Amino acid sequence: MAKTNERGITPQSEDFSAWYNELVLRAELADRGPVRGTMVIRPYGYRIWELLSGELDRLIKATGHENAYFPLFIPESHLRREAEHVEGFSPELAIVTHAGGEDLEEPLVVRPTSETVIGEMYARWIDSYRDLPVKINQWANVVRWELRPRLFLRTTEFLWQEGHTAHATEEEAVAEMMVAADFYQAVAEGFAAMPVLVGDKTPSERFAGAVRTVSLEAMMRDGRALQAATSHYLGTNFARAFGIEYTGIDGVRALCHTSSWGMSTRMIGGVIMTHGDDRGLVLPPRIAPHQVVVVPIGREGELGPVMAAAEALAAELTRTGVRVHVDTRTHVSAGFKFNEWELRGVPVRIELGPRDLAAGSAVVVDRLTGTKTPLPMAEVSATMPARLDAFQTALFDRARDFREAHSATADTLDELAEATATGFAWAFLCGDPACEKTIQERTGATPRCVPRDGAAETGRCVACGGPASYGRRLVFGRAY
Amino acid sequence: MAKTNERGITPQSEDFSAWYNELVLRAELADRGPVRGTMVIRPYGYRIWELLSGELDRLIKATGHENAYFPLFIPESHLRREAEHVEGFSPELAIVTHAGGEDLEEPLVVRPTSETVIGEMYARWIDSYRDLPVKINQWANVVRWELRPRLFLRTTEFLWQEGHTAHATEEEAVAEMMVAADFYQAVAEGFAAMPVLVGDKTPSERFAGAVRTVSLEAMMRDGRALQAATSHYLGTNFARAFGIEYTGIDGVRALCHTSSWGMSTRMIGGVIMTHGDDRGLVLPPRIAPHQVVVVPIGREGELGPVMAAAEALAAELTRTGVRVHVDTRTHVSAGFKFNEWELRGVPVRIELGPRDLAAGSAVVVDRLTGTKTPLPMAEVSATMPARLDAFQTALFDRARDFREAHSATADTLDELAEATATGFAWAFLCGDPACEKTIQERTGATPRCVPRDGAAETGRCVACGGPASYGRRLVFGRAY
Repeated sequence: MAKTNERGITPQSEDFSAWYNELVLRAELADRGPVRGTMVIRPYGYRIWELLSGELDRLIKATGHENAYFPLFIPESHLRREAEHVEGFSPELAIVTHAGGEDLEEPLVVRPTSETVIGEMYARWIDSYRDLPVKINQWANVVRWELRPRLFLRTTEFLWQEGHTAHATEEEAVAEMMVAADFYQAVAEGFAAMPVLVGDKTPSERFAGAVRTVSLEAMMRDGRALQAATSHYLGTNFARAFGIEYTGIDGVRALCHTSSWGMSTRMIGGVIMTHGDDRGLVLPPRIAPHQVVVVPIGREGELGPVMAAAEALAAELTRTGVRVHVDTRTHVSAGFKFNEWELRGVPVRIELGPRDLAAGSAVVVDRLTGTKTPLPMAEVSATMPARLDAFQTALFDRARDFREAHSATADTLDELAEATATGFAWAFLCGDPACEKTIQERTGATPRCVPRDGAAETGRCVACGGPASYGRRLVFGRAY
Repeated sequence: MAKTNERGITPQSEDFSAWYNELVLRAELADRGPVRGTMVIRPYGYRIWELLSGELDRLIKATGHENAYFPLFIPESHLRREAEHVEGFSPELAIVTHAGGEDLEEPLVVRPTSETVIGEMYARWIDSYRDLPVKINQWANVVRWELRPRLFLRTTEFLWQEGHTAHATEEEAVAEMMVAADFYQAVAEGFAAMPVLVGDKTPSERFAGAVRTVSLEAMMRDGRALQAATSHYLGTNFARAFGIEYTGIDGVRALCHTSSWGMSTRMIGGVIMTHGDDRGLVLPPRIAPHQVVVVPIGREGELGPVMAAAEALAAELTRTGVRVHVDTRTHVSAGFKFNEWELRGVPVRIELGPRDLAAGSAVVVDRLTGTKTPLPMAEVSATMPARLDAFQTALFDRARDFREAHSATADTLDELAEATATGFAWAFLCGDPACEKTIQERTGATPRCVPRDGAAETGRCVACGGPASYGRRLVFGRAY
C-alpha cells in the first residue's frame, strides 16, 4: 500500500489512481451507491455540477435550443433499428423485463443515450421544412453497464445533457455540431479551466451510428487523455431508421440530417485530475462551491468578536458576488480546518484571529501557491473578485503549460510510445484502422482527435510509413 | 363523440377529461412516449417546469438544503427492509433483471422514490449529533407503473424533487416537514396561482411508511381534488430499517427522525385544470414561457415597418424583465396566431398593425377577460409588469372564489355526496377507517386532508354519527 500523507490520502505523485479514488471520497464529492458501479453525488460534488451545468445550460439556450424531457425506457426493438448503434451499445444495456407485477411482453431498455426515442418523436413532429430546424436539449440520467466502474469517470448511471437536432441540410447539421463543440470548449476552458484540443475522431473512434464525431480532449496530470465532451453529425442514419422526413419548399420529401452532442458528470472527474495536487483538490473559482472560506481563529473566550468580524467580512464578500463560507465549527482546530479546505480545493482561505482583528487586517491564503498575504480588512473584499479571476487564469495557464510540456511530435512508433508514456504525441496516420490497432497494441495509446487548430502538414503514417491522411498530425494519448 | 370547437378541442364544459387530453397534446405541452404510460415533456411544457422548479429550488436552498444525486437503481432487498413501504410500492415497480449482457444475481428496482437508497447512505454518513441535521434534496426521475396513465397526472415515469432529512429529535423533523409544506404552498399559490388547503392526511391516506403525511390539496375546474405535493414525517421507521443512528451529546446512541417531501411534474396538470377554459390554457404569468406575444399584422408589402416596430417593442419589454415572443411567421394568418396563443394560454397578446403604428399605439389583449385595450406605444411596456401582476392575482382570486363557490359543509352522507359531486365537502370524521370506506363507496370521495387553517370545531362523524376526531372538519373530495 502506498504511503498516505497526514490527510490520509495517497500522494498524487506516488499513485495517481489511488490518489483519485481516495480524494473523491475524502473530499465528499461522491460515494459509491449500494449497486455496484452506481454513484452518489454528494452535495459538494453536485454543487460543482450545478455551476458547470448552469453555465452550459445558459449557452445552450443562448444558441437557440430549448430543453425538453424524453422517457427513460425505450422498447428494445427501437434500439435495433439503427444497426451500428445497437451493436455499439448492446453490451452496456440494462433491461427491464418485469413491471407492474407482470412480465413485460417486450423488454425495455434503460436509455444509454436517447437518439432512438427522440428519433421516434421527431418523426411524429416533423413534416415540413417549416418545422425545421428542431433544436432540443435534455438534462437526464443515462445507464451504461460498466465492468470497471470508477467514480465520475465510468459509472453505471451518470448525469448529462444530450442535444438532439434535425435539419434540412448536411451543412446546417454540421454547423450545429460545431456550435455545440464551441460551447463545450467555452465551458471546459472558461469555467473548468481545462484546456482542450477539439477535432474529429477517426472512424474507429466515432459514436455508434455517427458520420462524424468531434471530441474535446484534455490532459490529466498523469499525462492521460480525458474526453470531456463529444458532438456528432449523424448524417441521415437515424432519420432513415426512424422516418424523420420533411417536405421541402419544392414539395419533395427528404430525410433530415441530425446531430447529437453531450457533456456529462465525467467532467467533474476531469476537473479533479486536471488541477488536483498532493494536498487534494484545486477548484477553479467559477465552479467552486465556496470560492472563499473564512476561518475564525482564537481561544474559546476570545472567539466572539472574531466570529462577528468573520460574518461581517463574509457579508461584504457576498455583496461583491463572491461565494463565501464561514467555518464556525468549534470542535475542530484551525489547523484541521486549513487542511480540510485545502483538501476540498477552496481557492482562497482567509484566516482571521484576534491579532488580525486588532490590526484591522486579515490573512489571505492562496490554495495554488500557498502564499499568505496580510491585507487591511477593507481591501480583502475589494480585491477578491480580481484575485479569483487571476486564480482562474493561473489554473488554466498551468494546465496548458503542463500539456505543452508533456506533448511531443512523434515520427516513429518508438517516439510515439515515449511521448504517450507521459503525455500526448502528435503524429501522422494513414487512415487504415489496422495502423491504429498496431499503435494501440504497441503503446496503449489511441488517436484522440484530429485537432482543428493543428497546422496543415503532410507526412508519413507513424505506423506503416504510408502517406498520411487528415492533412495534419493527430494527437495520440492513453485515454481514460 | 363530443362536439369540438374551431380549435379542434372538446369544450371543457362538455367533457372535461377529453378537453384535458386534447389540450395537452394540441398546446404541445407533452406527447405520449413509445412505451405505454411514458410521457415526452415538450419544450413548452418543460419551460413551465423550469420556471416552477427554479423557484422551488430557490426556496429549498434558502431554507438550508443542499442538492445531491442518488442512484436510480435500488437492490430489491433494500426496498423490503421497511415493511409498509414495500407493501405500498410493490405493485408499481419496474424491475431490471438483466444488465451488461448477463442475468443479474439480484434484481434491481428502478426507484419509485428514494427513501431506501438514501437511508442506506445516511446510515453511512451520520455518526454523531454533530452530523445532524442532514438536509438534502434531489431533482430526479422516478418510475411507478401506471395501469391508467394520464399525461402529467399519472405517468409511468415522472420528474420531481424529493427532499430527505435526518434529525436528532421528533420536534425538528416535524418542523422540517412543515417548512417543506410552507414552501410548497408558496410555489403553488405564489407561482402557479393555485390556492391549496394544507393539512394532515388520515392514517389510511398516508405515504407508505410515514407517521404523518401533510398534503396540499387544490380544486380543479371540474370540482375534483388534486394533491399538489406531500410532506412526510417518517418517525424512526426508516432509521430503524437502515440503521440511521447517531451518538448524542450525552454519548448515547439513538435513532434519527427523518422526513421526506416531494413535488412533481403533476403540478403542470394541476395548472392546466385550475385555470384552463374552453379556449384552452390560461397560464399564470410567473410560470408562462411567454408572458406576452406580439403579433405583427399587415399585408405582405406593409409588414416590414410593423415587424421592426414589433421587435423594438419586444426589446423594450425584455428590458423591463418581461418574457416576450414575437410571432414572425408569415405563412399563417393573424387570426390563426390569435387562436393559437389563446390555446397555449399566453397571458397578454399585443396586436400591432400599420394603423396602430401610424397612431403610435398598440392593442393589448387580456387572455382571461378578452378585453382589448389600445395603448400609446410608450405605455405598453411601462405598464406591462403591473398588468402581469394583476393577471397573476386575478387568476389566484378566481381559483379561490371557484373553490369557495364549490365547497359546502356536510353533516350527512347525502350532503357530502351532493357537495362532492361538484366540489369539496367539509365534514366531521370519527377516525375509524371503516367510515372512510363507507364514504368512498357511497360518494367516490375521500378525506383529502385535515386543513391546518380550519376552525376548531367538534361534531359527529358524517358516516357513523360517533364523536368526531381531529378537532375540526376535514375536507372531502373526489381525487385525481
